[in-house]
Amino acid sequence: PSSEASSQGEPGVHEKVPESEGIVVTSEDGITKITFNRPTKKNAITFQMYNQIIEALKTASTDNSAITVFTGNGDYYSSGNDLTNFTSAAGGMEEAAKTGAVVLRNFVNSFIDFPKPLIAVVNGPAVGISVTLLGMFDAVYASDKATFHTPFSSLGQTPEACSSYTFPKIMGPAKATEMLIFGKKLTAKEAWAQGLVTEVFPESTFQQEVWTKLKRYAKLPPNAMRISKELIRKSEKEKLYAVNAEECTTLQSKWLTEECINAIMSFVSRKAKL
Amino acid sequence: PSSEASSQGEPGVHEKVPESEGIVVTSEDGITKITFNRPTKKNAITFQMYNQIIEALKTASTDNSAITVFTGNGDYYSSGNDLTNFTSAAGGMEEAAKTGAVVLRNFVNSFIDFPKPLIAVVNGPAVGISVTLLGMFDAVYASDKATFHTPFSSLGQTPEACSSYTFPKIMGPAKATEMLIFGKKLTAKEAWAQGLVTEVFPESTFQQEVWTKLKRYAKLPPNAMRISKELIRKSEKEKLYAVNAEECTTLQSKWLTEECINAIMSFVSRKAKL
Amino acid sequence: PSSEASSQGEPGVHEKVPESEGIVVTSEDGITKITFNRPTKKNAITFQMYNQIIEALKTASTDNSAITVFTGNGDYYSSGNDLTNFTSAAGGMEEAAKTGAVVLRNFVNSFIDFPKPLIAVVNGPAVGISVTLLGMFDAVYASDKATFHTPFSSLGQTPEACSSYTFPKIMGPAKATEMLIFGKKLTAKEAWAQGLVTEVFPESTFQQEVWTKLKRYAKLPPNAMRISKELIRKSEKEKLYAVNAEECTTLQSKWLTEECINAIMSFVSRKAKL
Repeated sequence: PSSEASSQGEPGVHEKVPESEGIVVTSEDGITKITFNRPTKKNAITFQMYNQIIEALKTASTDNSAITVFTGNGDYYSSGNDLTNFTSAAGGMEEAAKTGAVVLRNFVNSFIDFPKPLIAVVNGPAVGISVTLLGMFDAVYASDKATFHTPFSSLGQTPEACSSYTFPKIMGPAKATEMLIFGKKLTAKEAWAQGLVTEVFPESTFQQEVWTKLKRYAKLPPNAMRISKELIRKSEKEKLYAVNAEECTTLQSKWLTEECINAIMSFVSRKAKL
Repeated sequence: PSSEASSQGEPGVHEKVPESEGIVVTSEDGITKITFNRPTKKNAITFQMYNQIIEALKTASTDNSAITVFTGNGDYYSSGNDLTNFTSAAGGMEEAAKTGAVVLRNFVNSFIDFPKPLIAVVNGPAVGISVTLLGMFDAVYASDKATFHTPFSSLGQTPEACSSYTFPKIMGPAKATEMLIFGKKLTAKEAWAQGLVTEVFPESTFQQEVWTKLKRYAKLPPNAMRISKELIRKSEKEKLYAVNAEECTTLQSKWLTEECINAIMSFVSRKAKL
Repeated sequence: PSSEASSQGEPGVHEKVPESEGIVVTSEDGITKITFNRPTKKNAITFQMYNQIIEALKTASTDNSAITVFTGNGDYYSSGNDLTNFTSAAGGMEEAAKTGAVVLRNFVNSFIDFPKPLIAVVNGPAVGISVTLLGMFDAVYASDKATFHTPFSSLGQTPEACSSYTFPKIMGPAKATEMLIFGKKLTAKEAWAQGLVTEVFPESTFQQEVWTKLKRYAKLPPNAMRISKELIRKSEKEKLYAVNAEECTTLQSKWLTEECINAIMSFVSRKAKL
C-alpha cells in the first residue's frame, strides 16, 4: 500500500492507505488494523482491494505490531467478492476467470502464510469469501447483529479460502455442508455454537469489549505468540496450499459454466434494478 | 435393484424395488429416497439389504436427482446390522466373517464414493452401523425421538464405516470414545450438540419441516452442489478408503474371537426368547 | 515404580508407589488409578514425577486392568509443570532445557502409545501440561469446580503434549487459539462445550457419579475396547509423534530465550514471596 497518511486519522494513528482506496490500514497499541472501507457497497471486495490486502498482510507480517485485526466500516463486515469483478472485466469472462483464479490463490496464500495472530472483528453481516476466510483466522469476535452466509450453490459457485477443508474440520460435515452447499445463513450465536466464532458480544458493548480484550492480548510476549501460531499452522500448511490450489482451479472452470454465468448475471441485474 | 414398480407407490413415484425386499427406492422432486423397509425387524440390515443399497447408490449417482436421502419406515431409523447375518450363515462363523468383511468394505466404499449431497432423515432410534455411517453423510436431520447408539464393546465388536476416523474428527476424542468404546446412547439433542446431527425437529412437525427444506435444496444448481461435495470429500478420500480397509480387517478377526461370538450368541438368544 | 505397598492403602488396594513420591498408583475393579499426589504444591509435576508416570503407564499397559484413570489428590487436579524444574536445575538453564525436552518427549510419547482407554477425572483446577495432555485422553470427566488454563504466552512458552494439533482439531482454531495463545482460562462448562471435556458433574456428587460410571465401563470386554482404541489412534499416530517432536524442539530453544527466562524468574520469585 502507499504510505500517504490520511488527515482524518485518529491522533497517533499512522494510516498507510487513504480511505478512498477501499482498504484502510492503521497501526497502534501493538495492533495493525485492516478495515474494509467501502460502506456504500457493503464492503464488497474488488480486485484492487484483494491486492491491497495482500500488500497490507505483507507489511503487517514484519511491522512492530503483535497482532493483526480485520474489521468492516459501516453496517457490514463485508458482502464478499464484488461480482462486478466479473461482469466489468475488460477481456470478458474467460480473462476475468483466469485473473480471478490467480488473484484468489495469492490472496488466500497470504492468509496461510501470515505469521502473527490474526483476528476478525465481525461488526455486521459477512457474506461469501469474508466468511470462508474466517476458517484461517486465529480468533473471531462477532457482534450479535453479525450473520454468516455463503450462498455459493445458488450463484453456481463452489467454496474457496480453504473452507472445503477448514469448515468440515471445525464444525463437522453435517454442519459445514448446510453452510457451504445448501447456503444456510447463520446467526452469530449459531456460528459460535459451531466453532466458527470465538465469542459473541451484544452490539451495544461490542466495540468496547473487543478492543479492550485485543489491547490486552497485544501486550503478551510477541515471539511466544508467533511461534505458537507457527506450531499450530505447521501441521497443516502443505494441506492448506494444496486445498487452495484445488479450489481456485475448480472455480476458474466453474466461473465459465452457463450455470454460473446465468446466476451471476441475474444477481447483478437484480441489484442494478434496486 | 430390479425395476418392478410397487402398486402401493405414491402417485408419480417410481419405486425401483418392491417393498418386500427390505429397501425401497423412490425418486421425485429431484430427490432419490432410499428407505429401510423392514419395520417388523426395526429395519435391521441383512446381507441382501447391504447389496441392495450398494446398487441403489450406484443408480442414484447417475440418475437425474440432485440429492439422495436415507430414511426408515416405521418407528426405527435402523437397528443396524442384523446379527442373524452371522448366526444363520451357511458356512459357519468363519465363512460369515469373510463374506461380512467384503460386503461391509464395498458397502462403505459406496458411501465414500457417492458424488451427490447425501442426507439422512433420522425418524427414530438408530443403532450400530446406521449411526456410524452418519459420519459419511452431508447433512443429518433428526426427529427429537431419534436416539444414537453404538454398543460395539458390549457385543465384542469394533467401530466401522470410518467412524474410528470421522467421529473423533467431528466431536473430538473425549466424546467419540464415549459413543464408540463405552457405548453411551445419545439423545437427538446431544447428537446435535456434538456435531453429528445438523438439526433436530419436534416429532410432530418433523416430516413436514424436513421435506419442505429438502425439496428447496433439491432445486439448487446440481452441478455446483456436486462439485462442492467433490472438493470437500477430495481432501480425505484416500484416508477414508484406508480407514475402511483397516476397520474391516479388524472386524473380520474380531468376529471370530470367543469374546465376540459369546456376545453375539447371547444377544441373539436373548432376543429369540422375547 | 517401586512395588512397596503403602500401609495407608484402602483394603484390597495394591499401591505400587509410596505417597511421598508424588505419584500414587493403585489398581482395583479393573481400573488402574494414577494420582497426582503433591497437594501442598497444587500437584505441580517434577522431573521425578514425569518419569514415575512414564513407568506407571508402562506397567498399566500390560497389567490386568481394563482402563486407566488419572486424577489429583486435594483441591487441584494439577498445576502443571513445576517451574522450579528449571530454576533449580544443577547445570543451569541450558542443561535444564536439554533434559526437559527429552523428558517431555518421552512423557508425551508414553501417552501416544498407551493402548487402553485413558480417562481423566478432573477434580479441580488444571493448568498447563495437565490441560494440554487432555487432548490425548479418551474421556475427560470434570467437577464443576475444575478450570482449564494454559497461560503459555505470558510465561514466554509454547504449547506441548500435541495440543498444537489436538486442540484445533477438537475445538477449531478460533477457540484453540484463545486457550493456547491468549491464555484464556475456561470453566468446566466451557471446556465441555468446546469438546475438551466429556461430561461435567456437580462437585457434590462428582466422585460418586464418576466412579460408578467408570466401574461399569471397566467391565466391558477389554479386548474390544483396546482394539477400538487402536483403530482410533492408528489414523493419526505418526502425526502425533511428529508434532510431539516439533513441539519439544521448539520449547527447548524457547526456554533459553530472554523472553522466557524473564517470565519464569518473575513467576517463581512472585510465588516465593507469597
